[in-house]
Amino acid sequence: MHRTIDLNADVGEGFGPYDLGNDEAVLEVVSSVNIACGFHAGDPATMRRTVKMARDKHVAIGAHPGLPDRLGFGRRKWDLDPQDAYDMVVYQVGALWGFARAEGAALRHVKPHGALYNMAAECPELASAIAQAVKRVDASLILVGLAGSHLIHAGSAAGLRVGQEAFTDRMYEQDGSLTPRSNPEAVITDTVQALCQLEDIVKIGTVRTRQGGSIPLQADTLCLHGDRADIGSFARAVRKKLDDMGIRTAALHSGELS
Amino acid sequence: MHRTIDLNADVGEGFGPYDLGNDEAVLEVVSSVNIACGFHAGDPATMRRTVKMARDKHVAIGAHPGLPDRLGFGRRKWDLDPQDAYDMVVYQVGALWGFARAEGAALRHVKPHGALYNMAAECPELASAIAQAVKRVDASLILVGLAGSHLIHAGSAAGLRVGQEAFTDRMYEQDGSLTPRSNPEAVITDTVQALCQLEDIVKIGTVRTRQGGSIPLQADTLCLHGDRADIGSFARAVRKKLDDMGIRTAALHSGELS
Amino acid sequence: MHRTIDLNADVGEGFGPYDLGNDEAVLEVVSSVNIACGFHAGDPATMRRTVKMARDKHVAIGAHPGLPDRLGFGRRKWDLDPQDAYDMVVYQVGALWGFARAEGAALRHVKPHGALYNMAAECPELASAIAQAVKRVDASLILVGLAGSHLIHAGSAAGLRVGQEAFTDRMYEQDGSLTPRSNPEAVITDTVQALCQLEDIVKIGTVRTRQGGSIPLQADTLCLHGDRADIGSFARAVRKKLDDMGIRTAALHSGELS
Amino acid sequence: MHRTIDLNADVGEGFGPYDLGNDEAVLEVVSSVNIACGFHAGDPATMRRTVKMARDKHVAIGAHPGLPDRLGFGRRKWDLDPQDAYDMVVYQVGALWGFARAEGAALRHVKPHGALYNMAAECPELASAIAQAVKRVDASLILVGLAGSHLIHAGSAAGLRVGQEAFTDRMYEQDGSLTPRSNPEAVITDTVQALCQLEDIVKIGTVRTRQGGSIPLQADTLCLHGDRADIGSFARAVRKKLDDMGIRTAALHSGELS
Repeated sequence: MHRTIDLNADVGEGFGPYDLGNDEAVLEVVSSVNIACGFHAGDPATMRRTVKMARDKHVAIGAHPGLPDRLGFGRRKWDLDPQDAYDMVVYQVGALWGFARAEGAALRHVKPHGALYNMAAECPELASAIAQAVKRVDASLILVGLAGSHLIHAGSAAGLRVGQEAFTDRMYEQDGSLTPRSNPEAVITDTVQALCQLEDIVKIGTVRTRQGGSIPLQADTLCLHGDRADIGSFARAVRKKLDDMGIRTAALHSGELS
Repeated sequence: MHRTIDLNADVGEGFGPYDLGNDEAVLEVVSSVNIACGFHAGDPATMRRTVKMARDKHVAIGAHPGLPDRLGFGRRKWDLDPQDAYDMVVYQVGALWGFARAEGAALRHVKPHGALYNMAAECPELASAIAQAVKRVDASLILVGLAGSHLIHAGSAAGLRVGQEAFTDRMYEQDGSLTPRSNPEAVITDTVQALCQLEDIVKIGTVRTRQGGSIPLQADTLCLHGDRADIGSFARAVRKKLDDMGIRTAALHSGELS
Repeated sequence: MHRTIDLNADVGEGFGPYDLGNDEAVLEVVSSVNIACGFHAGDPATMRRTVKMARDKHVAIGAHPGLPDRLGFGRRKWDLDPQDAYDMVVYQVGALWGFARAEGAALRHVKPHGALYNMAAECPELASAIAQAVKRVDASLILVGLAGSHLIHAGSAAGLRVGQEAFTDRMYEQDGSLTPRSNPEAVITDTVQALCQLEDIVKIGTVRTRQGGSIPLQADTLCLHGDRADIGSFARAVRKKLDDMGIRTAALHSGELS
Repeated sequence: MHRTIDLNADVGEGFGPYDLGNDEAVLEVVSSVNIACGFHAGDPATMRRTVKMARDKHVAIGAHPGLPDRLGFGRRKWDLDPQDAYDMVVYQVGALWGFARAEGAALRHVKPHGALYNMAAECPELASAIAQAVKRVDASLILVGLAGSHLIHAGSAAGLRVGQEAFTDRMYEQDGSLTPRSNPEAVITDTVQALCQLEDIVKIGTVRTRQGGSIPLQADTLCLHGDRADIGSFARAVRKKLDDMGIRTAALHSGELS
């Protein structure tokens, strides 16, 4: 059983005139944030403000690179060349690094977003390209990906530290992948059910699947979805559950990686 | 009179399926390049390839941030908030830094592009915002701007090293600004006339103006426009002229700054 | 004094994952809507849904073309060539026409957005280019612009029907222009003050200015800003005020134009 | 054997500062053009100029809608919702219609571009969504697609006139699909081989496949790729071949559809 675990959330996903999520509430409870880098969401001004907020809250800062598809919020899969995946990760991590430097903050990790995350979980070539991108920009960055997925394997193979991510409010398939969002069961909206899943993951190291089974799941970090309508109260419920179980939240760092 | 001067060119200005300029020819003659960062031109793949080419040719690498206006190639002036200018420079310099890191190359300088360059030359608030952006990302970067302009003053005031830029093939106004491209005389297409202007700048430290006068011009670096149709032969003519005058080309560095 | 007046609002200004405004509430009270066309805001799916909603509510449909600047919501002025203004209006009006055709609805009018609206009010060349664009796409379209501005004159000169627009919740300058949004007084947030301005405009044909004077203002249509936080209640207050004054709201058409 | 056939080419694929192809040479030999609509390539100014050129050359004008992926030139497949395909076709056809109206020209047909074309050939749901989009904008438009593909079937099922397209310089697979561009044999660069394929298609109604077989192919229109380096001479060679065979080129219209 875990004694500490990272709690992460995607933030900085607004764009120009548009707000999204409730970053201030989220930053009160998480230990790490993944900041959108201007491809699937976010923009330079939002990146600056979000980096500054995270730094002030002593929350670990990570880059959240995505596909250049604002309209689809980076959630539509593309037939993507691994070289293109490499290039878009280098670009976006670099851009966020600019704001981190300007605000005197450090980048801790990189977690791909949406379709890029899912494609990297399933495709060894994309996973390897993304791992190389992270490594060549800064070999001390932690690569965060779906627990047990190809992205985790590629990160380890490249010599990067990795963070295995699990979801409290997403349904799992029997093969360990996330149930696609096109399926109505994909998102677990019921808080009680999500907290049960959280307990299974953290206490036992397993998760129930849509098919009714149970699979092992080793998690270094738990994801909070910032775009839930009830994100403020849900985040506090997750945090309270962890507190009640005596589990401390802390950002990923080498010593705690499994 | 100069014994060494920097010769710079804008490169990496293609985009996806589109080529622009003749970067290979240009890289044979210049000592510095300014690489487009994906706002007015360029894209992640082009940035990677261009950084690699410049590194292999031992040419100094600079970021060339512009307005997010691909359609207008970053040449249309905007009513731009200084904070927005700051943000777009941090973002773009960071993005190029990512590729420089990945290729084991260093960033030497930052030179704004097109309308951003001209607006920064004329507007102290924009100039100051850009200088702060460069300084906060990396205080060792050299800020390149129009010789004698507000951008140069702002860079110096911020404690940055600056590179004063002059043009061999652009017409000057009596106030030291460049003749706008909307004026048919703006670009000096005649090579002989451009080489005369080069000689005046480098030997005497003056330049003739569209109005017929002559103004002092202190130059650390000369710009070659990569989008001239005859860029290959023009670049070689400039280089030969400098050789004939016994002037060595070398990238900007602290010791040679005026 | 008016017996009927058009009440219009900008709608369809969301984008991909982002909502903006409260189009359903607005559509309950207005007689015309201006639908964003995918440059400053809006996207194909939003355009389709908004056209359909407006058609179902029997509200007149207009195109709301803007500058291709999503990040700045089309509110930053550009140094824009009149030909470029012409081209971007033809493109956007055509795109919205596609959805109107597909839904069996008609386009009634065109109203430029934000900086394009303000620049067209002040610059005869831009005004003329926009009027030509509208005329060449469909000479039966009504061109809506700031009352008394160059855009109105250009539309009339081109032989188009025009709709002179007034604002109940924007401050006016003594020269008839709108107080720029950079000025904190630009938007009249107080409902009572806005309703007073409405009464002046509709009953007397004048409006008070920021400088304390009063200027004549001939209005065919009143604008409701869909991005007010209180848009739902504000819209109903405006509609009630008009009802109390015995003024009927009706979309622009030839017979009611002044 | 055919006595007339349409010869079409993709044109207007430049963007802002970037040129692509040789539209003037192509317009001398084809009977129809497909004009990019600003998503995968093209922009408002290019659309206006290209429509005008085609009108002046009495070449039939079609819309060439693509995925909103300039960087990948619309050639990367996406996991695309049919509703999104519908929306992007309505938008782009409408936008081009705006320029056609403004120039007093007519739209004759719609041919999807790149990945959208290939996905529509293979996927009945996408094919049907695109056919509905075309039909609802203007039921008199001809839908052009890969000969024998789902797009052709969907167009016919929707009651649209269709144009079955064949390629002289693209390799075919045994199932009638085009060999993907990732395969080095995909493009037939040898002019003689391409002219043989042309003769087979037009005279016999068959085409040889990469696998060495031969399949029936009913063609109403032949595509010339405007981005061949030798497009000018290749286009003239194709035209001469058709002339030598006594086949007249003519734009698609109801009477000549198979």
